Order: sequence, then C-alpha cells, then structure tokens
Amino acid sequence: MERRKFLKGAALAGVGTAALAAPAIAQGGKTLTIVSTWPRDFPGLGISAQRLAARIAQLSDGALNVEYFAAGERVGAFDCFDEVASGNSQAYIGADYYWTGKHPALAYFTAVPFGMTTVEWNAWIKFKGGQELWNKVSGEFGLKPLMCGATGTQAGGWFNKEIESADDLKGLKMRIPGLGGSVMSKLGVSTVSLPGGQIYENLVSGAIEATEWVGPYNDYFMKFYEAAKYYYTGGMHEPGGGLSFGMNAGFWGSLTDWEKAVIEAACYEEHGAAFEENMAKNGEYMTKLVNDHGVQVRAFNDDVWDAMGEAAAEVFAETRDHSALATEVDDSFQANLREIGGTMAKFEGTFVNQRNRVLGLA
Amino acid sequence: MERRKFLKGAALAGVGTAALAAPAIAQGGKTLTIVSTWPRDFPGLGISAQRLAARIAQLSDGALNVEYFAAGERVGAFDCFDEVASGNSQAYIGADYYWTGKHPALAYFTAVPFGMTTVEWNAWIKFKGGQELWNKVSGEFGLKPLMCGATGTQAGGWFNKEIESADDLKGLKMRIPGLGGSVMSKLGVSTVSLPGGQIYENLVSGAIEATEWVGPYNDYFMKFYEAAKYYYTGGMHEPGGGLSFGMNAGFWGSLTDWEKAVIEAACYEEHGAAFEENMAKNGEYMTKLVNDHGVQVRAFNDDVWDAMGEAAAEVFAETRDHSALATEVDDSFQANLREIGGTMAKFEGTFVNQRNRVLGLA
Repeated sequence: MERRKFLKGAALAGVGTAALAAPAIAQGGKTLTIVSTWPRDFPGLGISAQRLAARIAQLSDGALNVEYFAAGERVGAFDCFDEVASGNSQAYIGADYYWTGKHPALAYFTAVPFGMTTVEWNAWIKFKGGQELWNKVSGEFGLKPLMCGATGTQAGGWFNKEIESADDLKGLKMRIPGLGGSVMSKLGVSTVSLPGGQIYENLVSGAIEATEWVGPYNDYFMKFYEAAKYYYTGGMHEPGGGLSFGMNAGFWGSLTDWEKAVIEAACYEEHGAAFEENMAKNGEYMTKLVNDHGVQVRAFNDDVWDAMGEAAAEVFAETRDHSALATEVDDSFQANLREIGGTMAKFEGTFVNQRNRVLGLA
Repeated sequence: MERRKFLKGAALAGVGTAALAAPAIAQGGKTLTIVSTWPRDFPGLGISAQRLAARIAQLSDGALNVEYFAAGERVGAFDCFDEVASGNSQAYIGADYYWTGKHPALAYFTAVPFGMTTVEWNAWIKFKGGQELWNKVSGEFGLKPLMCGATGTQAGGWFNKEIESADDLKGLKMRIPGLGGSVMSKLGVSTVSLPGGQIYENLVSGAIEATEWVGPYNDYFMKFYEAAKYYYTGGMHEPGGGLSFGMNAGFWGSLTDWEKAVIEAACYEEHGAAFEENMAKNGEYMTKLVNDHGVQVRAFNDDVWDAMGEAAAEVFAETRDHSALATEVDDSFQANLREIGGTMAKFEGTFVNQRNRVLGLA
C-alpha cells in the first residue's frame, strides 16, 4: 500500500510547496526551484529532502522563494542533473553517482566501494580538500555542490538465494549503480541502475533477481522481501559518504554572503539529520523485517569480500585512467581514507569492538 | 609556547567579539552573551566555539547581538552553568558532565563509560527522545540545551607508566571527570576534575600522574608528552557523545521561531563541523606525536577493559539511585545504545572491519 502511494505519487503533477513553511510562499525573493531524485514523502530520503527545502525557506525568511518537486513532478529522477546544469531549475537533491556517465569522479562524492564511512567522508569533504575537488568536478558542468543527506553504510542487498562464494554472483541480474555496480560487473553480475520508484516492479517481475537500496528503514517500505528473502548486512559498495544538493553555479554566484550561509547551514544541518534518522530507525525496522516478514539476515563471508576487493582495485585503476582530474580525486580520496580511517580504527574502532565484546552487543 | 598562550589567554579580560563577523556588533538586536569553558583560540574545542558564535551572528543578520567570552574572560570555565542559569549571560558552551554535581544524569548528555559513539548519540538525541530527556534535566535548572560540538571517541589518556592490568591503576592520581572518573575511582584511581587550562601545570608538577583530555589533535597542543609518554588509544570513558550549547530557558522562550531556527541550525552545523575537524586532523597530529615527540602508543588489554566494565555497571546502578529522572535517562540511554549500536555493528561495523582487513588498514 505505502509503496504503491510512493510509486503513484511520482506521476502526479503539482507544485511542491505544500509541505513548506509560510516564508516559502513569500513573494519578491529569489526563486530557488529544487528538483529531487526521490519520490514524494518517501520515508528516509524523500522526507529528508522535503525537510531541507522547508528549512531553507524558513531560515531565509522570505529572501528565497523555495519550490520543491519530487521525482517525476517536474522532471524524472535521472534528469535532475541536466535540469539544473541548464539553469532551468536552481538545485537538485540526489546522489551524484547517478551521473558517473557525465564524469566517473562524481562517484567519490556519493560513495565508492571499500571507501569512506559517512563520518570519514565528511571529514575529507570539509577539512581535507574534498569540497574543493568536488567543486572542480561539478564545476565542469556549471554546478556548485554541497553535502546534504547520508544513509550510513548500506546493506549488501536483497537476494533470492544465498551468496556463499563469488561464483554464486555470476550471471545474477542486479540493480546496483555507481562504482559498486562496476565491481559487481567484474564478478559476472549483470548490473542495472534504476531510480527508487522502479525497483520493486522489476524485482517482482523477475527482470532483476537482486537489488541493493539503502538499509533497513528505507528498504522496509520497498517490500523487496516479497521477492527476495536474503538480506545482506553492510556491503562494500556504499560504505557511507553522502548525498548532494547540487546548485546551478550561476544561481550560487548570484547569492549574497548571507543567503549562501543560510543554504550551507541548512544543508549541513540536514546532512546530519538524515544520517541520524537512518541510524535511529534502522534497528526498529530490522526487527520488523525479520519478525513480521521472515527476512533471513546474512553477512558476506571473507572469500566474497576478498573477491570484491580485487575487483574494486581494477575499477579504481580504470576510473583513474579517465582523466587527470579523476586521478587527482582518487589520490586524495585514497590517502585520506587511510589516514582518517586508520586513525579512527585506533580510537572509535578500538572502543566499539571492546564495548560490544564487554556488553555482548551484536 | 602555544600552550602558554592558551593558559595566559584565560587570564586576559576583554570583550570577546573580535573574531565575530560584522553583524555581531549590530545594535538594536537581542543580546546573546556566550560564556565558554574553553580557552580562547584553543585548537579544536576553542576554535569550534568561536566559529559557532560567529555563525549565529552571521545567520541572524543583526537580530542577535552576539558576544563571546572564552574561559576566564567573564567567568571561570566551571562557573558557566551558574552564570547562565542565573540569567547573567544567555548561553554557555561546554561539556555538561562538568556539572554532574548539579545532577548526575547530565553526564549522559556529554558521554558516559561504555556508552554511545557520537553518531549513535546524535541519533538518540534527535530521533529517539534524548532531547526531551535533556530538556527535562537541564530544565530543572532553568536551562535549554542543544547539542553543539563533538570530539569523537576520546583517547584512553596519558600515563607515565604502562598499564598492563587493573592493578597498575591503583593509587594513580589522574584527571578524569564525569562518570568515567567514577569508574576509575572504583578501580582505585585518585581522580580529579580540572578545566583544560589547568591540566598541564598539574601534570608537570606531579600533582597528577595521568590525564585524559580529547584525542591526538586537541592533545598535541597541551604538551602532555613532556611528562607522560604512554598514550592509550580509544578509552571507555568518553566514547563520543557531544558538547552543549546551554541557554537560559527564559532567553530561549523570548526568541521568535525564526531566531530559534537560526540558533538550532548553527548549533547542528557546528556539531558536525567540530566532530569532522577532529577526525580530519587526528591522523596528522598522531604522526607528529609519535615521530617528533617519542610518544608510545598503547591499547588497554582485555583484562583492563573487563575490570572497567564491571566498575561501570556499579557506577550506573548508583546513578540510577539518584532520582526517578536519572533512572528514566539511563533506561532510555541503555536501550537505545543496544538498539542503535547493535544495528550499526551489523552494517557499518561489518563493513569497517572487512574493509580494514582487505586493505590492511590500521
């Protein structure tokens, strides 16, 4: 039922301001039209995008006239990039790895296989040069990006059989975008990228046999368990990273310093909130999946992880070959992953492993 | 040298607006005087607090006339709570576990032993009822708190000898505040709580033999390695959690919805930024500590962790005995730690351990 509402919602026309606070409809301000890759009212991702739009409107106190269009209400999910690059709308909210066809380095600004967790990625973006590199890559298309939204480490995915070795992946038809999809392709998986609103029908029809989406809270509402009972815990493909508020660079340049500060603060606030909401709700929805829907929880074994690791190394080599800028991004990402992630392993990692051992957690 | 500047800085009188953006000195707005527990320009904590003050001033565009006073510039670090509860200033920035003498449940709103990491804590505060409980506890003193700033999992501390068993802790004089200090007391440590600006002189004089502070980036500037060479990685006492922007409740109640939104957005933005800056810089400063200052890095062994775990269980039992509200806070905290932390272990935990194994990280 709820899934149906999301899918149908995507086809409705309509001005997306219904959910916005009063200042959103103030006249005389600059227009900020936001197009989204998420269906309207979608738990997790959609709610987060709508909350962001409302907050920018509120903080700007009428200076920015904010309109929000969910996927399909103004343009299709995967058309958001061109819509904003062309200046037809002022900003999109989505995942930049949807557009690796434009530039493969865009993947690093969502999540890459064996890459950074959200906290590590945030640290790289804000304090280790990641934002400047992101500006460069997006700037080639007339866009100015900001981090806005995060899912945490995503689930390995939904499968209609157990995956006990890399061989079990061969020939499987799976929805998995970005460089994670490239890794799976190297292992013999037939991969496809589909927006959220189209996955369920493809899984139920058998057009795909497996899919990843986000994690327990977001996935619950997709009802994938009707067609695929095996749910894999943390996967290699999207360890964390974040989502994007991608603005038209001309629009960004036209803003006052104060308007820029309003948008930055709202994006960074929502970046945290989206991540936290997912972490807060995953446990509750994991329990529902297992107890109410008979979902079988599994973890990939070391052999599968090792095979994925070898494939990922090939994918990064190919990505670097694309251009000097892709190499520059990979250099910065890999060095910071090792420095930031290696240090966090000594502090947070040591603590979490000891705490979980002492308390008997998970 | 730099340490000396921080210590001296605490004694200087002065209006703390020098670092603020232009709107801070606009006339006619509501006065927001912030007192801080951190010395001026202190790397990490002090810089974060000053950045927050400047951002509130900027976002409020003159509606809030922001003044910032570092520790000792208006009141001493540990006097901030009373200064704001009395209405003499409008807000403090600090760590609420400094004031467990007022109410022991305040510890849960900074960090408690074997407790939540920052991400887990954020999820509890914003989406699982933590904020409402925090409002209740602080509300008993006429305060309204918001999360603002985080250090990540703190280092186990600086010791002048190796700690190879719980017996090695007996009789040690150590600076460690909050419930973590109570745990160490149960293991025979003679604990003391000192503000940041007073630790170094006590360690060098021998008044204390060990101390914890934050982590490599913040600790580097304290020069503790001059008196204590053994540096322990992630400890049990402050796994994450966050710092506080504690406002006078009457001041908060006098604000418009828009002014409240400005303060919330600025606090949540800075909460993320402080955490990310620490994670970004810890690796670089860890390397300096080891290579330039001969610091010996150690991890507590399982026996020490087990002894700490038993002591922590006693500390929580005593904290619950304080009042119905303390019990309510502990109930909520422990249940959410297990649900949020247990689920994160399956997703982020599974990934991080596999990634670090495959890449040979840390």
